This record gives sequence, C-alpha cells and structure tokens, in this order.
Amino acid sequence: MTESKIPSKENFSEWYHELLKAGEIIDVRYPVKGMCVWYPSGFALRRNVYDLIRELLDPDHQETQFPLLIPETEFMKEAEHIKGFEDEVYWVTHGGTSPLDIKLALRPTSETAIYPMFKLWVRSHADLPLKIYQIVNTFRYETKHTRPLIRLREITSFKEAHTVHATWEEAAEQVEAALSIYAEFYRRLAIPFLFAKRPSWDKFPGSDYSIALDTVMPDGRTLQIGTAHLLGTNFATTYGITYENTEGEQEFVNQTCYGVSERCIAALISVHGDDKGLVLPWSVAPVQVVIVPILFKEKEMTLEVCRALKERLAAAGMRVVIDESDERPGSKFYKWELKGVPIRIEIGPRDIKNGVAVLARRDGKKLTVPLDDLEKTIQAEADDLQEAMLAKAQAFLDSKVKDCETIEEAKEQTLAGVARVGWCGSEVCGHAIEDEVGAAVLGEPWRSEEKRLTRHCIVCGANTEGCALLARQY
Amino acid sequence: MTESKIPSKENFSEWYHELLKAGEIIDVRYPVKGMCVWYPSGFALRRNVYDLIRELLDPDHQETQFPLLIPETEFMKEAEHIKGFEDEVYWVTHGGTSPLDIKLALRPTSETAIYPMFKLWVRSHADLPLKIYQIVNTFRYETKHTRPLIRLREITSFKEAHTVHATWEEAAEQVEAALSIYAEFYRRLAIPFLFAKRPSWDKFPGSDYSIALDTVMPDGRTLQIGTAHLLGTNFATTYGITYENTEGEQEFVNQTCYGVSERCIAALISVHGDDKGLVLPWSVAPVQVVIVPILFKEKEMTLEVCRALKERLAAAGMRVVIDESDERPGSKFYKWELKGVPIRIEIGPRDIKNGVAVLARRDGKKLTVPLDDLEKTIQAEADDLQEAMLAKAQAFLDSKVKDCETIEEAKEQTLAGVARVGWCGSEVCGHAIEDEVGAAVLGEPWRSEEKRLTRHCIVCGANTEGCALLARQY
Repeated sequence: MTESKIPSKENFSEWYHELLKAGEIIDVRYPVKGMCVWYPSGFALRRNVYDLIRELLDPDHQETQFPLLIPETEFMKEAEHIKGFEDEVYWVTHGGTSPLDIKLALRPTSETAIYPMFKLWVRSHADLPLKIYQIVNTFRYETKHTRPLIRLREITSFKEAHTVHATWEEAAEQVEAALSIYAEFYRRLAIPFLFAKRPSWDKFPGSDYSIALDTVMPDGRTLQIGTAHLLGTNFATTYGITYENTEGEQEFVNQTCYGVSERCIAALISVHGDDKGLVLPWSVAPVQVVIVPILFKEKEMTLEVCRALKERLAAAGMRVVIDESDERPGSKFYKWELKGVPIRIEIGPRDIKNGVAVLARRDGKKLTVPLDDLEKTIQAEADDLQEAMLAKAQAFLDSKVKDCETIEEAKEQTLAGVARVGWCGSEVCGHAIEDEVGAAVLGEPWRSEEKRLTRHCIVCGANTEGCALLARQY
Repeated sequence: MTESKIPSKENFSEWYHELLKAGEIIDVRYPVKGMCVWYPSGFALRRNVYDLIRELLDPDHQETQFPLLIPETEFMKEAEHIKGFEDEVYWVTHGGTSPLDIKLALRPTSETAIYPMFKLWVRSHADLPLKIYQIVNTFRYETKHTRPLIRLREITSFKEAHTVHATWEEAAEQVEAALSIYAEFYRRLAIPFLFAKRPSWDKFPGSDYSIALDTVMPDGRTLQIGTAHLLGTNFATTYGITYENTEGEQEFVNQTCYGVSERCIAALISVHGDDKGLVLPWSVAPVQVVIVPILFKEKEMTLEVCRALKERLAAAGMRVVIDESDERPGSKFYKWELKGVPIRIEIGPRDIKNGVAVLARRDGKKLTVPLDDLEKTIQAEADDLQEAMLAKAQAFLDSKVKDCETIEEAKEQTLAGVARVGWCGSEVCGHAIEDEVGAAVLGEPWRSEEKRLTRHCIVCGANTEGCALLARQY
C-alpha cells in the first residue's frame, strides 16, 4: 500500500480532485469533458444519499419518470424559459443516418417535458394538489470550466420535484415545505447552509421567485446545493394547465418546482473531508463501522470474536465490514480513514481477555469500551460524531459570513467568504454591487432572524431594512 | 365511478393498452413516439421490481453509473457491434447553437462507454473478476411499430451488468450465474420462460454467443425478457483491456454482459392480468393488502378496528392500505381488483362480533378467517397465491410449446405458440426454417432436460440431436 498523496485541504481544488480519485467516488477520465463515471464506492454513497431524499419526499410526493427527450416544439413554448437555457441545450438531430423531423432536446430540466402531461392529468380541484418527483439525468452544454459533481455536462442525479396547486398562496406554502425538507436533508448530512432569495436577474427562468440553499466551500466560495421555485401561473398559461374550481369555472393552476443534484455529494465531500481523506456522516456512509482485528497472536480466536461481533452489529442494522486482509493494522487504519468510515473498532487478544475494544472515531477521538452493549456504545458515539460534524461545519460557515459596510470591505471579505451588505433591493444597485465587489449577489437572506446593524444601501445610501449576501460562486 | 371498459384479454393488444392506462402504469400520450411517462403507481411497481433486481445482484455485483453520451470515435471501434446498432442510434450533433466537434451517441447499450474505462480499471489478475451493473435509460431509434414497455425508443429502465474475467471458461460460468439470477428473478415474479441459445445470426453484435429468456405472451407470441452474452476477448481486443497474469505477462480479459429491461414489467402485466385488470404478485405489488371496511352501521367502531388492523399488518412488514372513501364496497372491490392488489380484507360489524374477516384473493378464492393471527393467515394465503400464479402461468406456457414434425405443422403451431422442431444447426437450414415457417428461430433450448422424440432436421433431414424453438416474436 502506497502512502497518501492527498494534498492539504488548504489547496482546496487539488485536494478535492485527488479525494474524488483516492476515495473512489468519481472517475473523471471518461472521454467526454464534463461527463464522469461513478465508481462503485461512490455510487454506494450516492445510493444512500438518494435513498434519504426518497425517504423525506415519499410521505408527501409520488415518484415518477418522464422522458429525457423533449421535442423542440414543446421546449420552445415558454419564452423566458428558453432564453435561460437555449445556449446550453444539447440537441439530437439524427436517428440512425436520417435527420429527425423535429429536433429533440436533452432535458436541461423537465418543466417542458412534464407540463404538457400535467395538462392532461389535471382536470378538477379534486386532482389538486399534485406532487411528483423524479431522479434523472439532465444535460447542460457548459461552456465554462467543468468540475466533477459541481459543474457537469451530464448531471447524473437530478432530483426534481414538480407540484400543482389551486392558488398562488398554496404554491408559496409548498415552496416553504420544500425548503423545510431540504433543510432536514442537509441536517442529516451535517451540512450547514444559507437560504437566499435569488435576485430577479438570477431567478429560475419562468419563475416568480427562487429560493436557494448555498453552502460555503473550504475556499470560501459558495455552492448552490438546492433551489425551490414559485412558478405561479407562468407555465400553466403557456401549457394550458387549468382545473375546474368548485364553482365549475376553469382556472389556471399555480405551480412550484424544486431540485437537488449530485452537488449535495460534492458538498458532503468538501465540507467534511480532511487531509486524511473522506469523512462521511454516519447517516449515509456505505460502511459505518469497520472492525480491524489486531492479529499478532491467537489469530483464529481473535478472528472468531471479530466475526461474531460483525454479525451482532449487522443484526443491529449497522453497515459493518471486517478487514481480514494481510496488511498491517496501520495500513488498514489509513485505508479506512481515507474512505471516511465514521467508526473503527480495533480488537486484539488482550482486549478480548479484558472484555473491551478500542473505538476510534473518524474525528480522532479514541476510547476503550466494553464489548458488552457495544451496539449501544457505537450508536451513541455515532450520534455524537454526527452532531459534532454539524457543529464544526456550522462554526466554519458562521466564521465565513461577515457584515461589511463598504465596497472595499465586501471585496476583501468575498475573497474568503460571504459578505452581508445593506441593499435597497433595486436591480441597478444590485448590478453595481456585483460589478464593484466582483462577486455575485446570492440574494436576500430568507427565513433568517438575524438583522444587520446598519440600515442603508451600500450603493445608493438609501435607508433600508434589506440586505444582500455576496459571494464568489461555484 | 364508471365501470370497467377493459376489453377481454382475448383481444390481447387492446387489452394490454387499456390496462396500462386504466391500471395507471404508463401514459403513452407523451408527444414523442415510443417515449412514455411512468404514472406514479406504475413507477411504484417499477421501484419494487428493480429493488428485487438489486437485491439479487448486490451480493456479487457493484452498482455504478456511466455517462449516457458516447463519442462517435469510441462507438465506432468495434465493427460488428456498430453494424448491429448503427441504424438505430440517436445522435447529438449540437450543443446550444454550435455543432459539436465529435458527434455523441445516445447509448443503445453501454459496452462502448464502459469498456474504455475497464481498460483503465483492470491492471492485474488481482483486479479480476470485476462485476458491475447499472440501471439506466438507453435509446433505440426504432423504425418498427413501437409498443409501451415492449418496443420503445427510450428504454427507461435498462439493467445492464458487465463482468471481466481472466479466462473464457470463467466468463462462460458467469453467463450461467447470470442466467440463474434471472431465473430466480422471474420465479419471484411468477413468470415462466424458456432459455434459448440464440442462433448465430441473432446473437448480440460482438459476442461469442447469446442466451435469452423468452416468455410466451397471451397471444402466443414470445417476448424476450432477458439476455446474457459471452463476449470472450472480442471487446477486450478492440479496447485493449488486458491484465497481468501471475507469470507477469499481459493477456486479454474475457467478458460477459447481461441485461433486463422494463419488458419484465410488460411480462408481469401480460402474463398475470385478467379481464378485471392487473394481477400483481405479492413479491412486488405496491399495495399487497387492501382493507375495505363494510360501513352500514357502527361505522366508527368498524373503522377503528380496520385502522388498528392496518397498523398490525404494516408492523408485520406488509404494504397495506385502508379504503375509507365514500364509495360502495362493490366499487371499492372493483377498483382494487383493477389495481391488482393480491389480498383484500373485508370487515363489517358482524365480522367483528364474530372475530373474523373475509379474505378475498385476487384469483377469486374467498374465505372467512379469524382476526387472531391474521398476519400469519394472510402470509400463508399470499404464498399460496404466488405459487398458484406461477403454476397457472407455467401450465399456460407449457400448453403453448409443441413438437412439430413438418413445416406445415410448425406454421400452424407458431400462429398460437412455440414450435419445437428438429434442426441440424446449420445457418442455411435455420434461415430456410424461418422463411418457410414465417417465424423466428429463437434458438436451441438451453439448460433443458427435455429431449425430442424425432431426431432429424426438419429441412435437410439429417440425423441430429439438435432442435430449434420457433415463434413469432414481439
């Protein structure tokens, strides 16, 4: 086993790429730019993360699947939407050697595939609300620099939900419900984030407004890891989606959509990982516990005890493996740390005699624990570890957000994190902020209790309660 | 509730289309031919069926995901493979408004996407065997008549496995292992089938040989519901996939691939369904038990008992719902029969007084059972029902396969099912059989103990142990 070549996390970009490779998450060597292969162990992580999404959505949504290919005629119906996507759509123009009558777009997102069907599915108020989701691959012809799991030409794991409601207010409530689901999702991944209402010039094309979740990456740039959009009647008007209300009249429906992509896994890796490798939350780690037998004498007896323990832990519902390979314990520790396994159990003959084991947490904490009731001990340590991960990540994020009073300060702050500045809310001042600071307006904080002290726009000086979050974005 | 408009199953094609619609499996109204939408309840069935595939594959395979788009340069490397697919490949030629430098194929199957990566993944004998699978959407520009779940332009649920081995023999053993997995899969779906070694002119392009699973549809035509291919070193040679053997020499690997698509769900629906609607096996039914309260008096008490029972059954791991709607019991029975729910429990006030319930199986069997131990009773009836479904389906399939001595007989037989005829195995006689009978040679029976009585080729008259299965195919 060769020793690690993972660069320090301080060189975030290098560290990230090397970790995807050494941690066997993603293979970037596929011969099309921006399209990657999930390694088996990466896919095992993805499965757990997306099972978690399903678990959170299933009580109030139904999973479906719509086609990938969208006829140009449908795709081109919603003017604002087209404008937002036309430069980055892949087009299928040929079947075999024959040109197609109507070009087919590879979905960049599925509004234009789904809503013509909603027109057929929704008849009356009794059909509402309708809440569906799908987990699919989507495509963007990115001309910017691509990055695995972050900026891709094939997004392999887009979870998009689409809901239909009678009124605008109900749709707006659904946006909040979606944000609560995402908040719970990220809480379980121990990933902190900021809610921001995107500025008008950065909302989803065809929406009334968009709320985003941004996390802060190790280098201080933000990563959008989820969005929820209030579509109102914009698409309903275009696609003719109406329902018969209780008075027997036809009305346009109100819609929302909200999505999460494999960026959630990019965040998972980036927020928690360290110089030793991946650090995976217990909730989704493909291997939660690794048992390392310390085999210098009484080898068979030690293995027996370890195997029996493995059965016990598996029976308690834990994802557990035992490393019986011939490597030295040190190499094994190194290997399983790299893979991000939350809990390691070391057991040697002397431990067995004493009825104990060594429990090592991925955050470095090590303790000797009794073999009796080990299930409970592990679960308690796992819960504590998960909380500690969230607390640490939250402290990091908090340290990266600062109020700034001047453009200069904001410029400085956005080199390392997120600046919060007074903003009157006007588009003119917003663009001026972006130009002068050299960072993006993430938008106004949403669902935030915090109030800024100063109350004037950083550009025009007008008195205002409003403020904007600024950052360099991935 | 309007009464059923499902045509008799004797009009198989009409019946099938109506059932997909009334059973809310697939919506065919998507505006691209051969591309369909999964209704939520269809997708719930799909999830259970594919969870079953995963359960069977996971012990010996790893799930992964490879990109959809394959550069023309990689796609065009394996000559025989291209020839097999070039007429039915969709091509992406544009990103935004710019033509792409290299055209991208939508995978019709993923050999040419995966094997360039296997070249990078496989180094030495220690890396073998390698066994991966993915569940993905694939595309075929079908010029023939398309049919939902059967002949599609977007196959939404292609499970393809790809394995790499040191020797041809090990690869051949893996083909058998794959067939055993598929046999178990279809046993759990209560779907009988025939194994056939496809004739040389119908094997997978680029393989040494192909074994297929064919089931017999209600109209006597066969449906291919799974295939396993021995690729030998054909792709390894093209893509340069080698490993270092124990002597330190580079050798080409031997490969297999095997796949199942949503045709498994087409088979599920077609084999088991009846004039009342879907008939779903207990193993994968999204709703396994429906409780119908008989509400004419003591309504609240009856509902209480039904709700408590629902909790009990759910706690026993059953997928159970209770129908509390205002419809009459008859309408409810009709509705849940249409959906194919295996077991219905009816409970009224008198039943409660007597400590019993009525258990109605989807196959029409009805019995009064004690409420005590109802979990066990239901499970026993469910097991019996599942066995009865397989036995019935097997008897139907057996009735549809007949030995034929003459071309005339075979012609007659293939109008209604599968003919088994003597065949010397030559391509010339094989093509002659197809031409004269007007049906396809499915191939030689594989893993079949049965021997035919006559031992001469139906065309050339040569003495032979060999025989061929003939059928009209979907």
